[in-house]
Amino acid sequence: MTHPRTLSDIPTPALIVDVPAMERNIRRMAEFFAAGACRLRPHFKAHKTLEIARRQLAAGSCTGLTCATVAEAEAASDFCDDILIANQVIGPDKTARVAALAKRTDVKIAADSVYGLEEMAAAAQRAGVTVGIVIDVNVGMPRCGVAPGEEALALARRAAGLSGLRLRGVMGYEGHVVAIEDRGEREARARKAMERLLTSAQMMREAGLACDIVSAGGTGTYDITGRVEGVTEVQAGSYVLMDTAYAKLDIPFEKAFSVLGTVLSRPAPGLCVTDSGHKACTQDHGNPAVKDAPGASVLFLSDEHASIAIPPDSPVRPGDRIQLWPSHTDPTINLHDVLYALEGETVVGVWPVTARGYAEQRHG
Amino acid sequence: MTHPRTLSDIPTPALIVDVPAMERNIRRMAEFFAAGACRLRPHFKAHKTLEIARRQLAAGSCTGLTCATVAEAEAASDFCDDILIANQVIGPDKTARVAALAKRTDVKIAADSVYGLEEMAAAAQRAGVTVGIVIDVNVGMPRCGVAPGEEALALARRAAGLSGLRLRGVMGYEGHVVAIEDRGEREARARKAMERLLTSAQMMREAGLACDIVSAGGTGTYDITGRVEGVTEVQAGSYVLMDTAYAKLDIPFEKAFSVLGTVLSRPAPGLCVTDSGHKACTQDHGNPAVKDAPGASVLFLSDEHASIAIPPDSPVRPGDRIQLWPSHTDPTINLHDVLYALEGETVVGVWPVTARGYAEQRHG
Repeated sequence: MTHPRTLSDIPTPALIVDVPAMERNIRRMAEFFAAGACRLRPHFKAHKTLEIARRQLAAGSCTGLTCATVAEAEAASDFCDDILIANQVIGPDKTARVAALAKRTDVKIAADSVYGLEEMAAAAQRAGVTVGIVIDVNVGMPRCGVAPGEEALALARRAAGLSGLRLRGVMGYEGHVVAIEDRGEREARARKAMERLLTSAQMMREAGLACDIVSAGGTGTYDITGRVEGVTEVQAGSYVLMDTAYAKLDIPFEKAFSVLGTVLSRPAPGLCVTDSGHKACTQDHGNPAVKDAPGASVLFLSDEHASIAIPPDSPVRPGDRIQLWPSHTDPTINLHDVLYALEGETVVGVWPVTARGYAEQRHG
Repeated sequence: MTHPRTLSDIPTPALIVDVPAMERNIRRMAEFFAAGACRLRPHFKAHKTLEIARRQLAAGSCTGLTCATVAEAEAASDFCDDILIANQVIGPDKTARVAALAKRTDVKIAADSVYGLEEMAAAAQRAGVTVGIVIDVNVGMPRCGVAPGEEALALARRAAGLSGLRLRGVMGYEGHVVAIEDRGEREARARKAMERLLTSAQMMREAGLACDIVSAGGTGTYDITGRVEGVTEVQAGSYVLMDTAYAKLDIPFEKAFSVLGTVLSRPAPGLCVTDSGHKACTQDHGNPAVKDAPGASVLFLSDEHASIAIPPDSPVRPGDRIQLWPSHTDPTINLHDVLYALEGETVVGVWPVTARGYAEQRHG
């Protein structure tokens, strides 16, 4: 693969990373966690890129990595020996792959059902390994998770009693809270969510069950949840590159990536159209922002076009380049095969998005 | 690559294609165009999959393929010798690649600016080839396209005067019309859009300029635009697999693909959660529908989860499989590396989504 050397050589549309800004984000987060008892477990799903995950771990203050899928854990296991799949793992193919992973890394999965525990235990027994279990507790978001308290305790007892499993603790993602802009409300609701999680952890310990992991949090709550006594690790991911949704919050991270596009058309004085549509930049958290272009805003995205309102006297013309700042990091990166790493206008690396898509589709 | 043999072996999330339904869609569309003077130019961007494009061309009544990107045209050129890139091609890397393509296939690009014409002409001259040009006329959608009438004529004159280019005609996509549910309104507005296009074509011919291609239309207007006298080809794409947005219209195509997911969790009586989130199924045209499950509906999609409301007495449990019917074909397919082709529950093929993403990122 021949690499472009400068920003102007990069074929569009493309994702570009401002490496110094990214490094500052990584350092700020590591410093926050160096100062307390809680650790960081960066979420690999945000970027799926080994070059970034390695830098996050190298900065220190980390327990290991969080992953959303088995394929992400497989990719991360090449350089990380402590992985939490913060998601239910269901299906014989998936549990067998987790069991295979357990031979070479300390892997833990989330579970919220007896079905999930028994399926994982069976696969672990067949492979002759032990897989870590964290009980996924619903702390308020209508998604996965067992009810806190007695139900969580009952499931933990079941996990502790199954051969092939090792109960490690609890997790609970306050995803319904992480994007609340008002800090007071975000803090109050995050603390309430953590009470549900910590109550469950306490009940497990009182029952004589292991609970050394209490995992929670995200980029929007890292400095709230990460200072609640008893929470042992925070699963933040988006802080490393940042998007417009998280930029609305009062958190000290910089925008460190954008979608580079080429202007295809200037069909009217107040309009230009670039090649960075929603196949290059998702809109699930709203339209992207136009970077460094006062008075410009995205009107709408089509598959292969961004229609952008610009001041009528703008000199923009076909062939110019415009950067968009995505509203949601994770799914936007998942559209691309590589990230172009930049220092200023120099391309210092072309980083494969190794765990993009569903690796099952590439390997059989 | 070892292929799964039956539906139940397919790792999830995954896109599955009902091949007999797809074949019926292809046949119905080919029969419509066999009956008139207008031809079909199926849009490759909808699926980016060679196995499907080959079947569309083999069914007859086609001029060739429509593509949205140079990379799609490169992939399609292996088996198709008549390609229209229905989009502006801007940038020295892209125009050089089109010029290279012109050595082995009859390739045409859309143009709506002098800049675009001159850049393409320069690349064609360097390569010693001739590239076809269709003037992209704005027929009412606020995206690319030169104004109809005098402006279109002036640009056509410019194209005709540039060495390395061969003026072939006009195109105009009535994208603002294709999704209008009321047939009367859709028909009236499509006809009005086509008047703009045909007026421009007529002015070109009266000026002694070539205009043998008049390209327009989509799945929502194929039987309106495709019967307007003077339109020579229709660029429909979604008809082949269909999505919930187009299914609202009175058009005779069947749903022929879906997102297969596994139930991860049944956290409450009225709720289940599958592994088919918006990294597997886009929501830019709204939430997907739940296939063959009366009373079930998607509440929201997260990156890796679909939270689905179900009847409280539903027997659904972890490990079960649920199919979602996407709201938008093109970007959903673009998330996946392969399509699993099914006849009944038998996997008859695993089709690479060859032109997924941006091939520039894979080739340098």
